[in-house]
Amino acid sequence: MERTEISTLGEFGLIDHLTQNNETNNSSTILAVGDDAAVIDHFGRQTVVTTDMLVEGIHFDLMYTPLKHLGYKSVIVNLSDIYAMNASPTQITMSMAFSNRFSIEALEEFYEGVYAACDKYGVDLIGGDTTTSQKGFIISVTAIGEVAPGKYVTRSGAKDGNLLCVTGDLGSAFLGLTLLEREKKVFLETKGVQPDLENQDYIIGRMLKPEARKDIIEFFAANEIIPTSMIDVSDGLSSEILHICKQSNLGCVLYEEKIPVNDLARQFAYKLELDPTACALSGGEDYELVFTLDPGVYDKIILNEQISVIGYMTGLAEGANILTKGGNKHIITAQGWNAFG
Amino acid sequence: MERTEISTLGEFGLIDHLTQNNETNNSSTILAVGDDAAVIDHFGRQTVVTTDMLVEGIHFDLMYTPLKHLGYKSVIVNLSDIYAMNASPTQITMSMAFSNRFSIEALEEFYEGVYAACDKYGVDLIGGDTTTSQKGFIISVTAIGEVAPGKYVTRSGAKDGNLLCVTGDLGSAFLGLTLLEREKKVFLETKGVQPDLENQDYIIGRMLKPEARKDIIEFFAANEIIPTSMIDVSDGLSSEILHICKQSNLGCVLYEEKIPVNDLARQFAYKLELDPTACALSGGEDYELVFTLDPGVYDKIILNEQISVIGYMTGLAEGANILTKGGNKHIITAQGWNAFG
Repeated sequence: MERTEISTLGEFGLIDHLTQNNETNNSSTILAVGDDAAVIDHFGRQTVVTTDMLVEGIHFDLMYTPLKHLGYKSVIVNLSDIYAMNASPTQITMSMAFSNRFSIEALEEFYEGVYAACDKYGVDLIGGDTTTSQKGFIISVTAIGEVAPGKYVTRSGAKDGNLLCVTGDLGSAFLGLTLLEREKKVFLETKGVQPDLENQDYIIGRMLKPEARKDIIEFFAANEIIPTSMIDVSDGLSSEILHICKQSNLGCVLYEEKIPVNDLARQFAYKLELDPTACALSGGEDYELVFTLDPGVYDKIILNEQISVIGYMTGLAEGANILTKGGNKHIITAQGWNAFG
Repeated sequence: MERTEISTLGEFGLIDHLTQNNETNNSSTILAVGDDAAVIDHFGRQTVVTTDMLVEGIHFDLMYTPLKHLGYKSVIVNLSDIYAMNASPTQITMSMAFSNRFSIEALEEFYEGVYAACDKYGVDLIGGDTTTSQKGFIISVTAIGEVAPGKYVTRSGAKDGNLLCVTGDLGSAFLGLTLLEREKKVFLETKGVQPDLENQDYIIGRMLKPEARKDIIEFFAANEIIPTSMIDVSDGLSSEILHICKQSNLGCVLYEEKIPVNDLARQFAYKLELDPTACALSGGEDYELVFTLDPGVYDKIILNEQISVIGYMTGLAEGANILTKGGNKHIITAQGWNAFG
């Protein structure tokens, strides 16, 4: 039998390949594979569904991840996908497989984080599955949300001339991860040495206990704003912008100087001799929202300090470009974190 | 820190423990943790959601499980939970983690089975996640279904005097597994010896490629039957009956002679010196439906050869009992297959 390595396709290529002949038959299926979440019709409301799997050793390292934070984050990454559809999450299911090295107390701690996230975001835990694994801890969460008919936002609706926007700041989660990995290495190489986290609470918190942008979706609703396209930042700004460009058949111009980076994160990046812009473009796991807007809506967003306009959409022929602070123009490439890398 | 082994609670005990303080806040959450599936309200229809995780080495063995069958079965076990709520499945999400020993061709084969099940049961694949694992193949499926308001059936609605019924036949999947495990052992111990599956296509098919009882839910709808309680057979008849008894606060009488066992399976059980009744009670993975009915509905089901009346519900004080062919009365205990065992 022929054998083709999965690495030849990468994650997105693999999904495209396996689902290329996927046909949907139920009239209630409005949007299937290929966005942050799927959309199902339910008489007057629309249901949004997303799912994410987190694997120990691939997506998280229990050496520096408290189980409570892991439970919290497992929920957040799914809620973020629901918000990225301009929808409100309402329920989750939580499935887990774990080896016998986990105690009941450890799972209680994990669940404390799950419930904390559910409480904060007003989401109900409605089901799941628990089983054993041969090795490691595997978490699979499905989140369900609702949205008024036709109000959901995909990656494919951006228009030429739209503003390209992002919430919050970018790159901090990657810098937090870099710091945690560095201290793990020191700890393993020099037994007894305690980790020096340099009071970098902000970037570490962004990595270990991210939040989802519920506030932005509420702001959109309160101000009657509907983005033309939207995606959340899980793999890095470059990767997310390229998804919007590809699925909307457009190009874009991104201004490096407009990319929001937190001051503490920027200082720490310089200390590590890392480029803060590269961290924002390729870092991932920030769980901010990237979206496009009709320029006519600009007046409605200028007062929201959590939203930055970072560029604009262009025709497909122009390609996806970044204008650097030095005035140079580069093609945007996706070098985001990839579990298949 | 205190350490309590998970084995002290078992799977169901663990879920109860971790979810004992679970509160639901969304008015749309009608039924949360604790049944075959959860129920969400959606203006005029109700949405049913279930999820199951399958782990290589725990739930399946790739030495004798063709990947196409595994893909098929991964879908079926979830659809079965939706039917067990008297609902119709409409969509699934499919998440997978796999190590680099899997090729694209292997995943294509797996997906062929997924699509075959989706086609046969009229279900749409609407999303999922694919990622790498450190070891083995882990599958997590969430199924979504719909049901007319108030028509969903839980495990807790059985009444004293209700008929206890089951569909199809029981124990075959366990016998199929026993045969496959025996031949695997022979093969590993004596290299070069080809497995002797003794033309036991029926029991092997029941194990490797089960079906879900869509036909029964359609029969109920066509004949305006609503069971008072229902559950699917994943862990074995004993375990499922005890779930209904416990959640309905009732006892029951089960007649051994009424438990449906396929003739080929019975013969094979005798050959292995196994008790066919024990296989049915404790075997699991048959994905038949166990349900209770008001006796007044009996006339409507007698013509359906796929339904067997196997006993009746009693008051709680009588306990859950089986009357053997020899006329003895025993307490039913759950010795079903348990991934925590």
